[in-house]
Amino acid sequence: MKVAFQGEAGAYSEQAVFNYFGKLEILPCESFDDVFDAVISARCDLALIPIENSLAGSIHQNYDLLLQHNLHIVGEYFLRVQHCLIAMPGVKKRDIRKAISHPQALGQCAGYLRSHGIRAEQAYDTAGSVKMLKESGARNTAAIASRRAAELHGLQILEEGIEDNAENYTRFLAVGRESVAPGEDAKTSIVFTLKNQPGSLFKALSVFALRDIDLTKIESRPLQGKPWEYLFYIDFAGSAEDPIAQKALDHLGEYAVMLRVLGSYPRFRN
Amino acid sequence: MKVAFQGEAGAYSEQAVFNYFGKLEILPCESFDDVFDAVISARCDLALIPIENSLAGSIHQNYDLLLQHNLHIVGEYFLRVQHCLIAMPGVKKRDIRKAISHPQALGQCAGYLRSHGIRAEQAYDTAGSVKMLKESGARNTAAIASRRAAELHGLQILEEGIEDNAENYTRFLAVGRESVAPGEDAKTSIVFTLKNQPGSLFKALSVFALRDIDLTKIESRPLQGKPWEYLFYIDFAGSAEDPIAQKALDHLGEYAVMLRVLGSYPRFRN
Repeated sequence: MKVAFQGEAGAYSEQAVFNYFGKLEILPCESFDDVFDAVISARCDLALIPIENSLAGSIHQNYDLLLQHNLHIVGEYFLRVQHCLIAMPGVKKRDIRKAISHPQALGQCAGYLRSHGIRAEQAYDTAGSVKMLKESGARNTAAIASRRAAELHGLQILEEGIEDNAENYTRFLAVGRESVAPGEDAKTSIVFTLKNQPGSLFKALSVFALRDIDLTKIESRPLQGKPWEYLFYIDFAGSAEDPIAQKALDHLGEYAVMLRVLGSYPRFRN
Repeated sequence: MKVAFQGEAGAYSEQAVFNYFGKLEILPCESFDDVFDAVISARCDLALIPIENSLAGSIHQNYDLLLQHNLHIVGEYFLRVQHCLIAMPGVKKRDIRKAISHPQALGQCAGYLRSHGIRAEQAYDTAGSVKMLKESGARNTAAIASRRAAELHGLQILEEGIEDNAENYTRFLAVGRESVAPGEDAKTSIVFTLKNQPGSLFKALSVFALRDIDLTKIESRPLQGKPWEYLFYIDFAGSAEDPIAQKALDHLGEYAVMLRVLGSYPRFRN
């Protein structure tokens, strides 16, 4: 089995792939578009894409790609993001004046960097910043990236978990060409649009509440190409194949202008 | 009157300030923290902060800062984000091989850049990339930024509106130390948390639906420090001072663990 992800070796997405699937063949891709293409063209079996971060919010681009293509969500995984301060071998923490990383990682470690008098400098991505550091050999500079990126390039971890907020989780979705049987403890992700009229969202949610179906996510998003109209993302507990969920989705279909089930999949439990 | 924003001269936030308030004194700040500090310490009267982009989603950091501090939302503004391809005077579009800008702006113009064979290179921010270009004087490079940034630095706009998706809006909120009387056509923003039990969100929304109060935004967000619990952002039509809205908020208080009214303000109309 082969799994695609966005980023290079040592990226957090790669770590999520190995944590979730175990050791297998990987296909690193430059962009999320490439990741979806790789699955569609069967250059790989599945992909693992980030969909939501507890600090930075939903990754709309991947929702858009899920809507554009006819793939199925087949799994989910939550990765605790732990940033490491990474340096050349032999370098001491007190030598570090500058840290390079992806802007988001720098932002998540801003308090740590400030309190240690370390200046932040943006790089293309987290794992790439480790490669850059190794190539430059700079001894006053650290990269901020995953433990795996440090190990991969043989660099030293000066400190682990330097993010300001420990509750930094990224939720990933596994996507494939075929749907799966999600088992007993399932989750379902749907996307829909409603007519822009008062109470329409309340009606839409009633189809779940009236059937005691638990929602685990709801988000409204201004609709691309139609400002002031909204797309809704909902995740609910259970499979779309459950008779009660089928009834709820039929009921929702009475109100929704567009409704897509993105997939039912085993719910991730720590 | 003096208004703070995050970014430097020529930033989209600066453009939003002038569009919304007219010509007045501005206070550019390095970070969103600095923007909030400037208002709290009365170094300025108001601030204008981005809260949501139609492509990139909500800016959680600013919701967090609104919750941390006791400021009031006093207005909203929607800016149509139009990216310009900006070059040194005399340079032709066919000379451009590389474009520098903030990663988000590069991403929003990815299709345009690809179709014109222009390589993307990340810079700290959009307006800053124009300054960098001017300093380097490079004739094979363009910056991607606002019209204002080009004018400010005396550079040439090769093409305007190069973003792949025209429906690129950023919603800004004006915040101040005092609340305002929002007038007849108002909007109110609230944040609340609920006990994590089935149907709790439905009950929360019922307080609005049962009173025919129209919601214009809803978003659930995993709660920092308490994974698997959720914070909800809701905007509704009307002022929190309207008797009917007061009843709805009282009613919501029966279910909510935490409830904060961030402000009532005049609704933006194009």
